[in-house]
Amino acid sequence: MTTSAPIRFRVFSLNCWGIRYLSKNCKERFVLIGDLLSQEQLDIVLLQEVWCEKDFLFLKKKLSSVYPYSHYFKSGFIGSGLAVFSRHRIHDAFLYRYSLNGYPYMAQHGDWFGGKAVGKVLLNIRGLKVHIFITHLHAEYCREKDSYLPHRVVQAWELQQFIRHTSAGADVVILGGDLNMHPDDLGTRLLRNYTGLQDSFSETANFDGCEEGHTHISENPFTNTDGLVPFGGGVRIDYILFKGSGEVDVSCESLSTTKGPVPGHPFPYSDHEALTAEFLFTLTTKGNGCSKRQSGCVSDKLPELVNTVNEARTEIKVGLHCAERMRHTAARTGIMGLVLLVLELAIAAVPLFALGTEQPFPKASFYLLGALCFAVLLSTLMLYVFYSMEVKALQGTEDQMRLALSSFQEQLKESSKVLSSDHL
Amino acid sequence: MTTSAPIRFRVFSLNCWGIRYLSKNCKERFVLIGDLLSQEQLDIVLLQEVWCEKDFLFLKKKLSSVYPYSHYFKSGFIGSGLAVFSRHRIHDAFLYRYSLNGYPYMAQHGDWFGGKAVGKVLLNIRGLKVHIFITHLHAEYCREKDSYLPHRVVQAWELQQFIRHTSAGADVVILGGDLNMHPDDLGTRLLRNYTGLQDSFSETANFDGCEEGHTHISENPFTNTDGLVPFGGGVRIDYILFKGSGEVDVSCESLSTTKGPVPGHPFPYSDHEALTAEFLFTLTTKGNGCSKRQSGCVSDKLPELVNTVNEARTEIKVGLHCAERMRHTAARTGIMGLVLLVLELAIAAVPLFALGTEQPFPKASFYLLGALCFAVLLSTLMLYVFYSMEVKALQGTEDQMRLALSSFQEQLKESSKVLSSDHL
Repeated sequence: MTTSAPIRFRVFSLNCWGIRYLSKNCKERFVLIGDLLSQEQLDIVLLQEVWCEKDFLFLKKKLSSVYPYSHYFKSGFIGSGLAVFSRHRIHDAFLYRYSLNGYPYMAQHGDWFGGKAVGKVLLNIRGLKVHIFITHLHAEYCREKDSYLPHRVVQAWELQQFIRHTSAGADVVILGGDLNMHPDDLGTRLLRNYTGLQDSFSETANFDGCEEGHTHISENPFTNTDGLVPFGGGVRIDYILFKGSGEVDVSCESLSTTKGPVPGHPFPYSDHEALTAEFLFTLTTKGNGCSKRQSGCVSDKLPELVNTVNEARTEIKVGLHCAERMRHTAARTGIMGLVLLVLELAIAAVPLFALGTEQPFPKASFYLLGALCFAVLLSTLMLYVFYSMEVKALQGTEDQMRLALSSFQEQLKESSKVLSSDHL
Repeated sequence: MTTSAPIRFRVFSLNCWGIRYLSKNCKERFVLIGDLLSQEQLDIVLLQEVWCEKDFLFLKKKLSSVYPYSHYFKSGFIGSGLAVFSRHRIHDAFLYRYSLNGYPYMAQHGDWFGGKAVGKVLLNIRGLKVHIFITHLHAEYCREKDSYLPHRVVQAWELQQFIRHTSAGADVVILGGDLNMHPDDLGTRLLRNYTGLQDSFSETANFDGCEEGHTHISENPFTNTDGLVPFGGGVRIDYILFKGSGEVDVSCESLSTTKGPVPGHPFPYSDHEALTAEFLFTLTTKGNGCSKRQSGCVSDKLPELVNTVNEARTEIKVGLHCAERMRHTAARTGIMGLVLLVLELAIAAVPLFALGTEQPFPKASFYLLGALCFAVLLSTLMLYVFYSMEVKALQGTEDQMRLALSSFQEQLKESSKVLSSDHL
């Protein structure tokens, strides 16, 4: 750090719900978002669901004087939807695509086509290495019967892995985005416990915004309120998380959310509320992060972390069981299609060998049935490949979790040895 | 580091060519590889192309007393093929799958199904954080007309990104694996120039092995020698690269390769030669790596790096042009299929409206043509999605390269300012 004066740093995060031709008032809302960002004195802007590159380019042009640096993370079929605008030079950008992200045949949910990922940009603020992460995890469409839960847990696991492994040299780490998880959900606990990231909502000195920091509220005219009823009309699924290092203390001075409609307009900025956090970076010898000697940031709460990883591992096993069953079904259906095709061809071949026998099939039915069998065979083959990849990703995550647990147990053993030798 | 005495560290790397039922003498070779590893006093073993988990489990069992720690990286349809055996506890493992890796319809090459990736394991050797990376890039099937070159350049880019971003806290970084690139190829230069990794072959004090360190030689009975003729019968495509940190100096004391058949057997361990490197880690104040304050390790040779990234960017643009053309072809063919289907349905519908008109199509042809149109429509739709994802990945890489170049230019400007102020 070239100066020891504290640094104020303002972060903005919003899920923009920018699906052209499907999201309501999409174009107008991007104009209003641009106006808001121009007025606010922000250091970095983290936007999710900017699905169309044209909207990113529109914002880039509109904001070029205030935020001269930007990056749009491209991934998947449509894109990752992640966009960053910054007042400070972006020195480097890196993207990690999650290995699991829904199913391509669930086109009505569309997550698979989005190529969900976590993006990282590197800033240098007066000599401080500030690592900014932005992400958007798989949506939760039905909380009671959430078939995407194992995928979201894998994403939360990969997110914490990515942050821990890539932020060893950071002075400040900030993560903003739509996690699609409630504050006490398994994935949120996994992410926070393992990385040591703090929640700006619980740590802030001043809060101004929706009740309990909700970012997805029933008052929002774009929101489907059915899913929010059990939660008193609102949930908190968007976050700005942060941590310092051994040398830099980071405190959250204020946090605010937008509340309902844009002043002077009948609709809000998005179907989510935006978050704005103001941080203070102070050079110190006892920061609120881990020392850089530690590659991760396994906190003192090791037993709690062991429980969380065990819980996550159980969830992954449930997902694995389901994926294996689906793969088995695909294989069985494919074999049935193949048998039917072979049978049909055999029956059709009879007249070739037994002269005088009439063709047992009407030609139309023969071709129709043949085409059907072939289509079944091809689609089940593709599904088999897809489910095998899902199985491999889930197994890989479980292996990594097992490895982490065995390392934690070793650490627990060592610390208990130290304790007992202290007692002697 | 808890001790200042130098540490000897032996690394082994081999592409095992372990395709069950397809690779020759596969089972026997894994037995021999296991025997070799048991005898050698190695610290870490990095194996590629262990495609079948059974072979990994066989080695794990056989080597459990000598190398009690292991990790098998799972990814893609078949797996990543990457396996690590270690004498020291593996504290953490992390996998990054490359965003591009060939085409699923090129089944005869099979790379796409392998889910190529870079794996990282974390060791703690007497207080030193040793980050070990293992990878296997897309194969080169035809050097003169290498249609996979843009994919391999993307992989090399992502590999250097992954290593730079995840090794900021490392004392020692080691990368072993089959890069499928010659020492002076664009991807190798990109990787080495940007990460600052050194080549154990050029840095070693003692070398014993194949001429010029070749790991893919024409004397190998499993090798197709045609591709090796222009290179004098051998190429070097397998590497062990390394670097220290600001606090730890790493030197390569010796490097050796296997040479031809296993003693007492008519065949070698694999279609590649194995590499064994011995390193010495010495605690110092002037190590041969970057200080941990630097997140990457952009060397003093910035102008050279700028040229390499520019060259890589050109290659990515060529790939992008090709992918866009393929996507366009898929879209055009799909539209033709759709038009044909609509036309057929329209002609078939004529008798419904004009009574007395005979059905113009024989039923069989009608169904056959319909099925064909539908198949074309479906397959081009999938190809369109696939090529769009390829386009997005290439565009994303090019954006990252552009960002890096603009950051380099800023650094060059600053250093020239410093130089000119020194002159004043």
